[in-house]
Parts: sequence; structure tokens; C-alpha cells
Amino acid sequence: MTEPLNKDQVQTLLDDSPYIGFMNLEVVSMDLDKDEIVIKMPMRPEFERRIGTGQYHGGAIAALIDIAGDYALVMKVGGGVPTINFRVDFLRPGTNTSLTATATTRRLGRSVAVVDIDVHDDQGKLCAVGRGTYSPNVG
Amino acid sequence: MTEPLNKDQVQTLLDDSPYIGFMNLEVVSMDLDKDEIVIKMPMRPEFERRIGTGQYHGGAIAALIDIAGDYALVMKVGGGVPTINFRVDFLRPGTNTSLTATATTRRLGRSVAVVDIDVHDDQGKLCAVGRGTYSPNVG
Amino acid sequence: MTEPLNKDQVQTLLDDSPYIGFMNLEVVSMDLDKDEIVIKMPMRPEFERRIGTGQYHGGAIAALIDIAGDYALVMKVGGGVPTINFRVDFLRPGTNTSLTATATTRRLGRSVAVVDIDVHDDQGKLCAVGRGTYSPNVG
Amino acid sequence: MTEPLNKDQVQTLLDDSPYIGFMNLEVVSMDLDKDEIVIKMPMRPEFERRIGTGQYHGGAIAALIDIAGDYALVMKVGGGVPTINFRVDFLRPGTNTSLTATATTRRLGRSVAVVDIDVHDDQGKLCAVGRGTYSPNVG
Repeated sequence: MTEPLNKDQVQTLLDDSPYIGFMNLEVVSMDLDKDEIVIKMPMRPEFERRIGTGQYHGGAIAALIDIAGDYALVMKVGGGVPTINFRVDFLRPGTNTSLTATATTRRLGRSVAVVDIDVHDDQGKLCAVGRGTYSPNVG
Repeated sequence: MTEPLNKDQVQTLLDDSPYIGFMNLEVVSMDLDKDEIVIKMPMRPEFERRIGTGQYHGGAIAALIDIAGDYALVMKVGGGVPTINFRVDFLRPGTNTSLTATATTRRLGRSVAVVDIDVHDDQGKLCAVGRGTYSPNVG
Repeated sequence: MTEPLNKDQVQTLLDDSPYIGFMNLEVVSMDLDKDEIVIKMPMRPEFERRIGTGQYHGGAIAALIDIAGDYALVMKVGGGVPTINFRVDFLRPGTNTSLTATATTRRLGRSVAVVDIDVHDDQGKLCAVGRGTYSPNVG
Repeated sequence: MTEPLNKDQVQTLLDDSPYIGFMNLEVVSMDLDKDEIVIKMPMRPEFERRIGTGQYHGGAIAALIDIAGDYALVMKVGGGVPTINFRVDFLRPGTNTSLTATATTRRLGRSVAVVDIDVHDDQGKLCAVGRGTYSPNVG
């Protein structure tokens, strides 16, 4: 375990991953005291579920959830944190020009961490919720 | 509910989705009696977790799981089947040139269906398992 | 769908179930506007994990989570609501003289509802979190 | 990690837990090579969902799933294995005189193990499926 990261460092880590970089994820805010990170995913043509729907495919939403949950921990422990498992519940279609994931750590133990992730559209509607378990291997 | 689909019809549905089409998913086999569909996801640069690892990002694996589980039902009921929720457990890094998802329906009820999805790499190693609940709205 | 229930009606429904009645669950509070119900589970000898630990077995905690999540919906829709599936994450041992589940509905759709459940011990420590999907069949 | 356990040792561990002992669980069979354990739960009045239904409450089924998944690992590693999280999907009402859980380990890693659990009634109908993640702390 190293030091917590600042917002620029987290953004650089996101951009350096080919998969995440392609998703164009943007760190909106980070709050180490509240254990919360907010990450935005702008729409791009490759995310659309069906042509003309303007709706994100659930796979893109699931990936956003996994990543946001992971980085709620990465920003704290300063390094890579493997996902053990996660669950996604889809509540409403994710339409509009961007989706925003708010990830909050519920428990950061030595070997297991649990993070909740809410995904809202740009109208503020809750589109999906996620819950992930990660392996922080904290010192 | 319409008729079950054949392999070409399922492949066309996959290709017609911008999101799935970008993933280059290929229907390897379908067995309506065994309630099983096998879908392959070849590696592409945008799927890599970190440059030089050759490993799929978990987000791509999760999306593959959601889609394979969904199409185990789509091929039966002949139309779109929304995902209610799904869970992914990551067992080993998914490396190599392709991953293959085998999705098997455990229960197809009138309003809820449950599908299990196993993901193997091209060496036959089990990399991830998924379980999804879908809303078939049958009959 | 009938009318929302009051606290006495919910308590009676709990007591009338042989399984729930044995668990001695008590409705602490209900808030229809906040979509929240709080249910307490006092320790009893049959709940202990191992003799002398004073810790609840995870099975009892899982059952509490399922029931609390269910009744967050039952109090709204006025009748039985089958569980589709649920997930439990254990964060800390549940010791002490009682556990309290706070269940909050995240989404009440026509055919699917999602509820989050937090379980605290009587020191206020978060012991477990649950997330359930239910089938409300709302008019 | 100690030695694998035999069937009598596993049965004794089950009986020694106040919670599991109350459930009257019985080890039907164990197969260390197939990583499989089968555990039976006879009906008892305290398990009934509603008087006169003859149906198990989902909480009892969830507890059975957690325990069966756990003991698929306990029999291998010879000691206690904490549950990290688990998921239960209910497929059909569990009626009749007993339910039987078949738990199969999908992956036993050093720090995380994943187990699948199928629950059948005494007519052989699949009533529920579970998937659990456990912390074996092997070696």
C-alpha cells in the first residue's frame, strides 16, 4: 500500500488503460474522507444498444460500474485492486448524453472491500446500481 | 413470443447492435434442446486491461457474460429480453487470443429467467462465471 | 395491489409466518415516504454460529436481509411479494444482543423492485449489506 | 490448512453449530475429487413460509445454500471458511418433505473460492440456485 492518489493521478491511470481509455471516462470528483469517487462516461456511438435508441448497452454500464467501484479503492490504496465479483441491477434505460457513476466504499478490510455504485443519467435519474467486492491486499 | 431463431438470425442481431458489433462477437454454436449458446470474443486492442498484459479488462468480460446470457434466451423467445441483473465472479486473468462464453438457461419462467454463463480462455481455463436474471415476458 | 399497511398490520404478517415468527422479528419503524422499514432481530440460542462466540450465523443474517427487503415492499403494495434473488455481503461478525436491518427501496417498478438492506449490530457497526430483487406485480 | 475431513467429521461440525444443528442438516454424500458435497434439509414446522402452504421460507433455503457452499470448502481445507458474499435465485417454491443442496467448488484459490449450489426438492425439481464466494485462507 502506497499513498492515496490525487485526481490527476487517478485520471492518468484511467487514461493509460486501453480499455478504460477507449471509454473516455472522466473523474468528476474525489472525496477521500467520504470514500467517494464520481466518474462520468460520455455517450459514444460504440456504446449504443440499438441504432437510433440513444440508449447505452448494459455492458457499457456494467463496465462503468466495475471501474468506478475499483477506483473508489485505487484512490485510497494507491495501486491496482482486482475485482473479486460484482452485481449490476438495471433500473431504467440509460439514455442521454452521459452517465455518471458515484462509487462509495462501504467497507475497506485488509483482504476484502465492498463498494456501492449508483449510476445516474444527465437528468439525475437512477439508471442502475452496482455492488462490487474487491481484493485490496492492504498492507 | 415468436419463433426460436436460427444461428444466422442470432448472428445478425448481434452484428446489428453498435455495442455488440464493436465487440466482434461470434456465435460458435447453439443448441435449443440443451438451452445452450456458445459465443466467442476475439481479443482486440481496446479490450486490453493494461498495455502489454495481453489480458482482457473485466468490463469486457462482464459485457460478454451479459450478452451471452441474454442470447441464450433471445434464441428461444425470438426477441429482445431485458436484463434484470447479473453477477460476475472473476476466477483467473483472461489472457490469450479469445474468450468463449457458454450460456445455459437454468429456468425460463413466464416473467423471469435465470441463465448461467461460464467463460473460458482459448486454453480451456475457466476465467469467469456469470449468473443473470432476465425478463423474457413469455406468452 | 391494495392499500399500504400500517405498522401493526406488518407486525401481524411477520408473526403469522411460522418461519419469521420463530425469528421473533420486530418492526422498529416504517416510513412510507422514505420507502424505509427498520426490523430488529434479537439474539436467540438457535442463531449462534458456534457455541460461546455470541455471533449470529450468516444464515440468520441472510434471512433477516431477505425478509426486511421484502417487507419494504409489502408495506407499500399491501400483499405478498416474492423474492426473485438477493445478495448478501458479510462485512463484520454480527455479535451482541440484537441486529437491526434497515431496508430502503431503490426502485419500485411494475414487475421488478430493487431494495437495499443494511444490517447493524447494537453498537451501530455495519455487519452486512444486502440487495434484493423482488416481483411486486403492481397493478 | 489441515487435512481434508471425512463424512463423520463434517457431520459433527454441522451438528456442533447451534444454528446448523437446529436446521437438522444431514450430509448425504461427499466427493473430494469432484469437489462436491450433498446436504439434505428435512422440513420442520419452523421452516414453513405460511401456515398450510408446506413451502419452505426463502430464508431457510438461503441459509442451506450458504452452509452447503461453505462445507464444500470446509471438507477440503479442514477448517472454518468465512463467507464473503453469496447470491440466491429462487426458481420454484420449495415444497415437500425435504430439500437437497448440491454444492460444487468452481475455483479454490489461495484467498478466494467460488462455489455453486443447486437446491432440489424431493421430486428432483430445481427450486433455487446459489453462488457463494468464500475466504479459504489456504496455505
